[in-house]
Amino acid sequence: MRDRALRVMAECGRIATMTEEPGRITRRFLTAPMHVVHAHLRNRMEALGMTVRVDAVGNLRGLWQPPNGSGKRLLMGSHIDTVPDAGAYDGVLGVIMALEWVQIAQDLKSPLAIEVIAFSEEEGVRFGVPFIGSRAVAGRFDPAVLDTKDSDGITVADAIRAFGLDPADIHGALLDPGTIGFVEVHIEQGPVLEAEGLGLAVVTGIVGQSRLSLEFKGHANHAGTTPMLLRHDALAAAAEWITQVESLACATDGLVATVGRITVKPNAGNVVPGEVEVSLDLRHAKDASRIAAVGKLIESANTVAERRGIALQRTDRLDQPAVPMDERLNSFLADAIEAAGMSVKQMPSGAGHDAMVLASRVPAAMLFLRSPGGLSHHPAESVLEEDVEAALKVGSKFFDRLAADSRQIR
Amino acid sequence: MRDRALRVMAECGRIATMTEEPGRITRRFLTAPMHVVHAHLRNRMEALGMTVRVDAVGNLRGLWQPPNGSGKRLLMGSHIDTVPDAGAYDGVLGVIMALEWVQIAQDLKSPLAIEVIAFSEEEGVRFGVPFIGSRAVAGRFDPAVLDTKDSDGITVADAIRAFGLDPADIHGALLDPGTIGFVEVHIEQGPVLEAEGLGLAVVTGIVGQSRLSLEFKGHANHAGTTPMLLRHDALAAAAEWITQVESLACATDGLVATVGRITVKPNAGNVVPGEVEVSLDLRHAKDASRIAAVGKLIESANTVAERRGIALQRTDRLDQPAVPMDERLNSFLADAIEAAGMSVKQMPSGAGHDAMVLASRVPAAMLFLRSPGGLSHHPAESVLEEDVEAALKVGSKFFDRLAADSRQIR
Repeated sequence: MRDRALRVMAECGRIATMTEEPGRITRRFLTAPMHVVHAHLRNRMEALGMTVRVDAVGNLRGLWQPPNGSGKRLLMGSHIDTVPDAGAYDGVLGVIMALEWVQIAQDLKSPLAIEVIAFSEEEGVRFGVPFIGSRAVAGRFDPAVLDTKDSDGITVADAIRAFGLDPADIHGALLDPGTIGFVEVHIEQGPVLEAEGLGLAVVTGIVGQSRLSLEFKGHANHAGTTPMLLRHDALAAAAEWITQVESLACATDGLVATVGRITVKPNAGNVVPGEVEVSLDLRHAKDASRIAAVGKLIESANTVAERRGIALQRTDRLDQPAVPMDERLNSFLADAIEAAGMSVKQMPSGAGHDAMVLASRVPAAMLFLRSPGGLSHHPAESVLEEDVEAALKVGSKFFDRLAADSRQIR
Repeated sequence: MRDRALRVMAECGRIATMTEEPGRITRRFLTAPMHVVHAHLRNRMEALGMTVRVDAVGNLRGLWQPPNGSGKRLLMGSHIDTVPDAGAYDGVLGVIMALEWVQIAQDLKSPLAIEVIAFSEEEGVRFGVPFIGSRAVAGRFDPAVLDTKDSDGITVADAIRAFGLDPADIHGALLDPGTIGFVEVHIEQGPVLEAEGLGLAVVTGIVGQSRLSLEFKGHANHAGTTPMLLRHDALAAAAEWITQVESLACATDGLVATVGRITVKPNAGNVVPGEVEVSLDLRHAKDASRIAAVGKLIESANTVAERRGIALQRTDRLDQPAVPMDERLNSFLADAIEAAGMSVKQMPSGAGHDAMVLASRVPAAMLFLRSPGGLSHHPAESVLEEDVEAALKVGSKFFDRLAADSRQIR
């Protein structure tokens, strides 16, 4: 498995060179380097005996059909688009790992068909709409998205045509009715596994997410001539509330809450701030816990604002429920990790993934690999060779487990 | 005095129309509308029997020399430049009021000469350098300022020449050696007098001021995948410190402390803030109290940063000592307020004024008028007719008091 692990990392490094910008990894939906990635992966897939096609939203799909296979297939994969100035592993690792798992399945003479999808779009960078690739596969593609324009005024429909595809064929991207589940291997993109000294984790689900913004409206005043007790300082109010956001999140198991953006008016050193807008991003694996936390923080913002004679305005921007991963697939992954001789860590994913979208259609599961330094969306993003090797072993044990239970799934 | 009060307010309103921008009051140093203001004030001064000149930095100066006067003179005035989109009273009121006091002194046959100066520059808008007018009068003009450029690339020296003046004559702006003191009438620009239901105050001094910026350097992380306890959130750190700034200022008599500006990187809703820079503006009438407060806040910022594993960098930007007003002149103003039948309020000025600059050369004093709503540097800036009338009465009593003591000054 050692050589295979090195090959996985080399493949990710090679695909990293297929970029829109020399010197940086940037590969947006349906841009020119996507053709290069497709050509490269197609070669690899065909060498594995897979039949290859590109669907109408640009997902590259390779199907391994074993001799005497049933009509059932396992879906695997991840995305090959990136954020600007990205690392080499976010998304790409899941595609390369899926191809290795195909080879492992072939070696084991697994009777299950495997379809590997390199999703064309997950990050939402080019059109501001994420998950275009997996939505089409899950039958959740919204045709209105075809009219969305990128910063050059090109619509999604135009981009699809320019890539040599036909937007009228998007229904053909829908997954095969014999699909029994989806498994995605992905880097953690966080510091949890590293902090616990572990290489792999089974993902229990994608956390639910609330995003909102709060506007504190006080009065701008002269910083020298306005005594403290006659102020209605919007930034002092926001600061008090930000400390409460942090306190509640620290005191609530599994909750993360972030004030990441702040806009102050007039934002001058010698003027008491009159208006402050802050963002709140709040995530929890349990929707009830998330909604309760939002409620508490709105209440405390109101209390802070009222006591200070400051107006408060709330704008809800996102209320996305948690998406649990499939318990049976998860138990297979956990058994496989145990069979490979490792301790089983289960954790939620704080970020969205293609598996979240696929989960609306088929049982879905994810395997996380430790992210050194917790780094992601950064050129220094990496994986450890030992973790890649461990994930390959898990693949082998997973197919053993799956073969034993394949009649039971759905 | 009622009619005179109305005339003062009408005059301020008229000068407000002499602006660079139709629909807004904006009158920067040595711009075209300054010529219009000069022509208007010159007429008024000459009608009062004053001799008028414009010195080399553009200060308009009118001298009332009473018959059989001594060589001694009282200096009065304020500035006629404004911030962009200003109100009608900041500065201008002090010039118009000075001319009314001249008339009052004439009516009382006061033996004292009075020089009224309409300072050409106080706000620092055009060249980023404040107090150009009063600095020249106080003999504190820095010749290096002549090379400072405005946003159009015009130097101060060029602007002086374009106005028809000669920068080589700046030494001629120095105040007359017979000057016994300077009195400036000005709006409070804060909410204190209104909150206390008072119209006038004697200014004890201009507060000292510290300005600095602090940079909190943590780590930017994914808002979904980074658990609370593994974060180094620069904004959460800054917010905790901002609440401490406010607490200390509220608990310290006479202290005002303001965090008015904040810059967050990357300032995205779904990213834990990595770097935050905040400004601190801290003012107190006693330099020792101010310096002690700065020390305490730096210490608490260090404590917050260390506990959170965040680096802290401090940049000092200003350390300006307090400037006390002259005790004897102040006592005359206080006596005059009392003689006019009002209670005497003494308060520091939280903002800088021309009197602060003149105080380095001659005894200086200021009389504040209530600012309705605490508003200033705003089109809705105003004064109450009753307060203008009261300030005229104070002028009359002031000259009585001054006449009785004139031999004692200096």
